[in-house]
Amino acid sequence: MGRGVIAIERVIARIGRIDDVAARAARERLDALTKPQGSLGRLEELAIQLSAIVGHTTPHTARRAVIVMAADHGVTARGVSAYPREVTGQMVANFVAGGAAINVLARRAGARVVVVDVGVDAPAIPGVLTHKVARGTRDMTEGPALQRHEAERAVAVGIDVFEKEHEQGLDVVATGDMGIGNTTAASAITAVMTGAAASSVVGRGTGIDDATLARKIEIVEHAIALNRPEPWDPLDVLAKVGGLEIAGLVGVILAACAHRVPVLLDGFISGAAALIAARMHPSVTAYLIAAHRSVEPGHEASLRALGLRPLLELELRLGEGTGAVLAIPLLDAAAGVLTDMATFDSARVSRR
Amino acid sequence: MGRGVIAIERVIARIGRIDDVAARAARERLDALTKPQGSLGRLEELAIQLSAIVGHTTPHTARRAVIVMAADHGVTARGVSAYPREVTGQMVANFVAGGAAINVLARRAGARVVVVDVGVDAPAIPGVLTHKVARGTRDMTEGPALQRHEAERAVAVGIDVFEKEHEQGLDVVATGDMGIGNTTAASAITAVMTGAAASSVVGRGTGIDDATLARKIEIVEHAIALNRPEPWDPLDVLAKVGGLEIAGLVGVILAACAHRVPVLLDGFISGAAALIAARMHPSVTAYLIAAHRSVEPGHEASLRALGLRPLLELELRLGEGTGAVLAIPLLDAAAGVLTDMATFDSARVSRR
Repeated sequence: MGRGVIAIERVIARIGRIDDVAARAARERLDALTKPQGSLGRLEELAIQLSAIVGHTTPHTARRAVIVMAADHGVTARGVSAYPREVTGQMVANFVAGGAAINVLARRAGARVVVVDVGVDAPAIPGVLTHKVARGTRDMTEGPALQRHEAERAVAVGIDVFEKEHEQGLDVVATGDMGIGNTTAASAITAVMTGAAASSVVGRGTGIDDATLARKIEIVEHAIALNRPEPWDPLDVLAKVGGLEIAGLVGVILAACAHRVPVLLDGFISGAAALIAARMHPSVTAYLIAAHRSVEPGHEASLRALGLRPLLELELRLGEGTGAVLAIPLLDAAAGVLTDMATFDSARVSRR
Repeated sequence: MGRGVIAIERVIARIGRIDDVAARAARERLDALTKPQGSLGRLEELAIQLSAIVGHTTPHTARRAVIVMAADHGVTARGVSAYPREVTGQMVANFVAGGAAINVLARRAGARVVVVDVGVDAPAIPGVLTHKVARGTRDMTEGPALQRHEAERAVAVGIDVFEKEHEQGLDVVATGDMGIGNTTAASAITAVMTGAAASSVVGRGTGIDDATLARKIEIVEHAIALNRPEPWDPLDVLAKVGGLEIAGLVGVILAACAHRVPVLLDGFISGAAALIAARMHPSVTAYLIAAHRSVEPGHEASLRALGLRPLLELELRLGEGTGAVLAIPLLDAAAGVLTDMATFDSARVSRR
């Protein structure tokens, strides 16, 4: 048994149920505050979920990081993306330089950006946590994208990165991704894990035309037919039609659940990782917060399968964790309502 | 001609069109940044709108205030609210003490809270800007809620408060309200200004039961039939079936447009004020940003009439400006993307 499997088994064993007692206490607290009961809508649901995750009614959100997993995809050889493969590495360099959308939005949200190279097909870049499991995946139309042990090692990278960040203090983790071609892998995972048709989950990614879209659907169908990933074995799916950055995010999600840290999921790629993680332990979904609904059509399928309602609908389709960090202020707000508001009694406001 | 009218005419004369040249420059800038074109969805639309409002492509958002207008309503004598009338004054005191939802959320958003008493039926409260036009409106089921000159004076209060805040530095203004009974007034305004049936715009406000809801619909229908507000004369509508805090918000909106400051609209009450303001000058709607979609059914009618799509849908129904300040981080994000991101050229990232 490889090191990857050992790390995975260790965190899975540590994942527990969320705390129903804390959830009830949060509900009671919210109902005593100076506002009509339930009038803060989904912010109240969020406050209850945060309480249930951390196990008390004063959840903190100040220490947050977005972990951006980056890797390349062999399937880019099939021309599935509007951008050339080298953009993965170039964008990782942009992340380090601070000029990408995720840098700008994370800075505004007060989140640190942790960039992890799990398999970029380029030399190591200073400032990036470099844990290359491979120089990208193999072309899934010719065979499995990854060997199972590679997928496991990439999951273990995610666990390891999360735990190091957690040691530094981490109240909320947001997921992010970079990888030219990764909507193709996420589409394949989503189709397999949700049972949806490839044609209903494949989208335009960064902006492909109709002909490329049709080819992308065929490629996903072909990769699934050729590799026969088994939906009851999530690591099999992850290896055969997934990606190294998606595997890294699976590790981040599992480790966050194990450490009772809320997970702010970005869009379609993070959703695919969540589908894998959720099949590995039944309590995972309770720790997940869907930050937004992506324009990618397959995101809806994964959100439905995960039973998650997104907080934001801003027609984003960028990835990098941008949607996730945009939702951080809503977590701050939800936590702040619980901890900072006056009650009817303390403020001497008449009840209904 | 009263002082109120003079102030109103002055700001209306100053309202100009938004800047199409700045909007185009913002679009070009966004398309040069290191992200697929349009991939930040509504954040990009927002960045363009902010640029068009301020007239350049580096809009600032750091200095922001939520102006919370408070007043009482004579129609509360008809039992239209789940809460007693004295809650208006009690909540204003809570605002000053910092324990209300708007305080907590505004603090997280870095917005100052400006509380204005335009007509609370209680003694003046220290810390509140006191400009009582009356001790609340009259009961609209027995005649006009306000004399026209009272409505005009309340609008002028809003103009004055905005302009004093603007002198201190103000990049974004958010609208807020407090007034037990004010969803009844907002329903009447919305019905008259949009042509919708009272039954389709009246909702449960802070949480009334079915019998009270039915009575509230009848009350709105009766008030409109009795007072015959004229939709082509927005100040007539505002006076006959409106409220002093709604009038104050009309003033805030008009003055913000005149000073080219983006207006973050809260929910149903702010929407009613916007319907009035929008009928007073055709350029007003271009300065408005709908922060969220309220649970109140009438909000949809006003959003549609204003041609606005809300940024958030969090099932809020609290008012106070809570929904408006929750959207402030999205404005920061939109402005930040424009000003802080790298371009494909500067970051040496390959284009498609």
